[in-house]
Amino acid sequence: MTLPATTLQIRSLVSRDGQLTLSLAEEAIAQPAAHEVIVRVEAAPMNPSDLGLLFGAADLRTAKASGTASRPVVTADVPEAALKSMAGRLDQSMQVGNEGAGVVVAAGASPEAQALLGKTVAALGGAMYTQYRTIAAAQCMPLAEGQTPAEGASAFVNPLTALGMVETMRREGHKALVHTAAASNLGQMLNRICLQDGIPLVNIVRKKEQEDILRGLGAKYVCNATSPTFMQDLTDALVATGATLAFDAIGGGKLAGQILTCMEAALNKTATEYSRYGSSTHKQVYIYGGLDRGPTEFTRGFGMTWGMGGWLLFPFLQKIGPEGAAKLKARVAAELKTTFASHYTAELSLVEALDLAQIAVYSRHATGEKALLNPNK
Amino acid sequence: MTLPATTLQIRSLVSRDGQLTLSLAEEAIAQPAAHEVIVRVEAAPMNPSDLGLLFGAADLRTAKASGTASRPVVTADVPEAALKSMAGRLDQSMQVGNEGAGVVVAAGASPEAQALLGKTVAALGGAMYTQYRTIAAAQCMPLAEGQTPAEGASAFVNPLTALGMVETMRREGHKALVHTAAASNLGQMLNRICLQDGIPLVNIVRKKEQEDILRGLGAKYVCNATSPTFMQDLTDALVATGATLAFDAIGGGKLAGQILTCMEAALNKTATEYSRYGSSTHKQVYIYGGLDRGPTEFTRGFGMTWGMGGWLLFPFLQKIGPEGAAKLKARVAAELKTTFASHYTAELSLVEALDLAQIAVYSRHATGEKALLNPNK
Repeated sequence: MTLPATTLQIRSLVSRDGQLTLSLAEEAIAQPAAHEVIVRVEAAPMNPSDLGLLFGAADLRTAKASGTASRPVVTADVPEAALKSMAGRLDQSMQVGNEGAGVVVAAGASPEAQALLGKTVAALGGAMYTQYRTIAAAQCMPLAEGQTPAEGASAFVNPLTALGMVETMRREGHKALVHTAAASNLGQMLNRICLQDGIPLVNIVRKKEQEDILRGLGAKYVCNATSPTFMQDLTDALVATGATLAFDAIGGGKLAGQILTCMEAALNKTATEYSRYGSSTHKQVYIYGGLDRGPTEFTRGFGMTWGMGGWLLFPFLQKIGPEGAAKLKARVAAELKTTFASHYTAELSLVEALDLAQIAVYSRHATGEKALLNPNK
Repeated sequence: MTLPATTLQIRSLVSRDGQLTLSLAEEAIAQPAAHEVIVRVEAAPMNPSDLGLLFGAADLRTAKASGTASRPVVTADVPEAALKSMAGRLDQSMQVGNEGAGVVVAAGASPEAQALLGKTVAALGGAMYTQYRTIAAAQCMPLAEGQTPAEGASAFVNPLTALGMVETMRREGHKALVHTAAASNLGQMLNRICLQDGIPLVNIVRKKEQEDILRGLGAKYVCNATSPTFMQDLTDALVATGATLAFDAIGGGKLAGQILTCMEAALNKTATEYSRYGSSTHKQVYIYGGLDRGPTEFTRGFGMTWGMGGWLLFPFLQKIGPEGAAKLKARVAAELKTTFASHYTAELSLVEALDLAQIAVYSRHATGEKALLNPNK
């Protein structure tokens, strides 16, 4: 097998004057250093966190196609207000793709790099939306015999995020969880983890089909946020589970505040004494995603003992340290085809990923729909 | 001096069907146990936290007067939505008044109670809106020679809250503070503490007069939230101070989120590398008051490393333990006439406190305006 000299990769650029440009760049494949390998990337998930970097808060209703059939270019306007938060990336051509999987086609001299040669590996390291990625062997996880790149593509972000939620629950002294957008790939993983570990989980979804999916997977508590009885249903589930910690993928709108309100109502149902400041049990919602980019709004009818905040995988992994992270990763490797299985609704080539019709689909962040990029398709 | 048999006190009752009733109740003065004293209360501040219990979220535009001149009664409607959060107090006649000061006119047999006889003391213990309050000697702090009850009335809640903010800042690893409604009694105290301790403080106010008051008191950073350049002014002050912790008395509206947005903008000004998740420095806003009871709203344009939450004095004191609290109280006692001085814009009798015209004034929570209740006026 001969290695090509160059690799094609997706680039995202937001200019200072507010224009997003997506394109395919061809660049030389970096020769691996002793501790590095070259992975031929065959599967990389298009997660919300990737799309955030890819689209740079552009208004995709303004997206226009240009370029050629083999080198498509997409441009779109970035709203003025959003530019401010991206000051650090303006006028820089960004590589995209947190994670992916493929075959190691070249390796540096070190034993750990050589050991991976020919293996199918999953890798976490950014810039994975490329045909060939030169990366440290330490950032790769060999897949088990017979596992495909597609099966290993999402071996890091979603599995570690789901495990991170459970770990956060334990470390912060809660005993049950609430999760929104709960029918997502990540939500289904979390549901499987909680069933295995005996952790009560309250799943919040927005569609009847999503309720059915989760119930079919054995979920005991599923609340539909569009139901007229949602607040009561959620309160009942919170009384039953005692959950005082939620992870919210939505971010915008009223849901995060509604969860706190229902947690407080659930706690007050068992309170023995009135406190003008509300329940003294800490109630927490971590917003880890932004499926709704609109404003977050809440009425503080849940006492004074509450918190809302951002939650992100990488700082969490830093907090628990290499040993803690290694434990989580070992569990993922052992259960990749079961607990941590992902599914995708489309497999796209690099060119297809820059097609306006495809973008219109995969940029929707529809729960249960996820595209898999295959840069070598 | 002979002690009367009964004491008149303010009561607040919210009925299950949504009516607030304020009245004066006459009840027997409890004889002091060995460790207790009886305080003739001559000054008790009407703080926002007291008014929350007093008015029970009633809509004061519906307030009506009844009763007699010496035993006035005020009734008002409590909105249905607010009733839920008060389930624990419905149909109970609540005593009011977190703190106050007065003269010890009787004492139990124990040496610590006897030692307070005849002394002017400040006390924290609830139910202080009464003419005579039987209370544990341990809950009283003797004032220095020559200090009046009015001078000692606010010796606990505001001073300990202001010191608690500074202590929270130190314990959570921040090096400067932001404070809203900063021209309040509490805000002026915080300003004096920060000047003394060399802590950079960014004061946020809403009126030109309030800016002037604070600048007159030596405040270096004062931002007016109604100014068209507010966001820029605040960002500049945050760059200058490095503040990543705010205490917000307002609660409702967009201010809490604007503070986080400006903190992020300030951090990004000195960032050397772009992170799609925003600055990795934790940014925190604690909401400790609810001057604006409306919804809190924010656009999450400040990355993923942020928190918002409730902050309350009593859980904080529990967290730092008796020794920590004693240290803070000793500082208050030593600096009561200077750092922790309060001022009031009206002195009300019990009857006046239930007068609709007075209520219309003191229920406004106007910054810099505060009523002092004198149950023995």
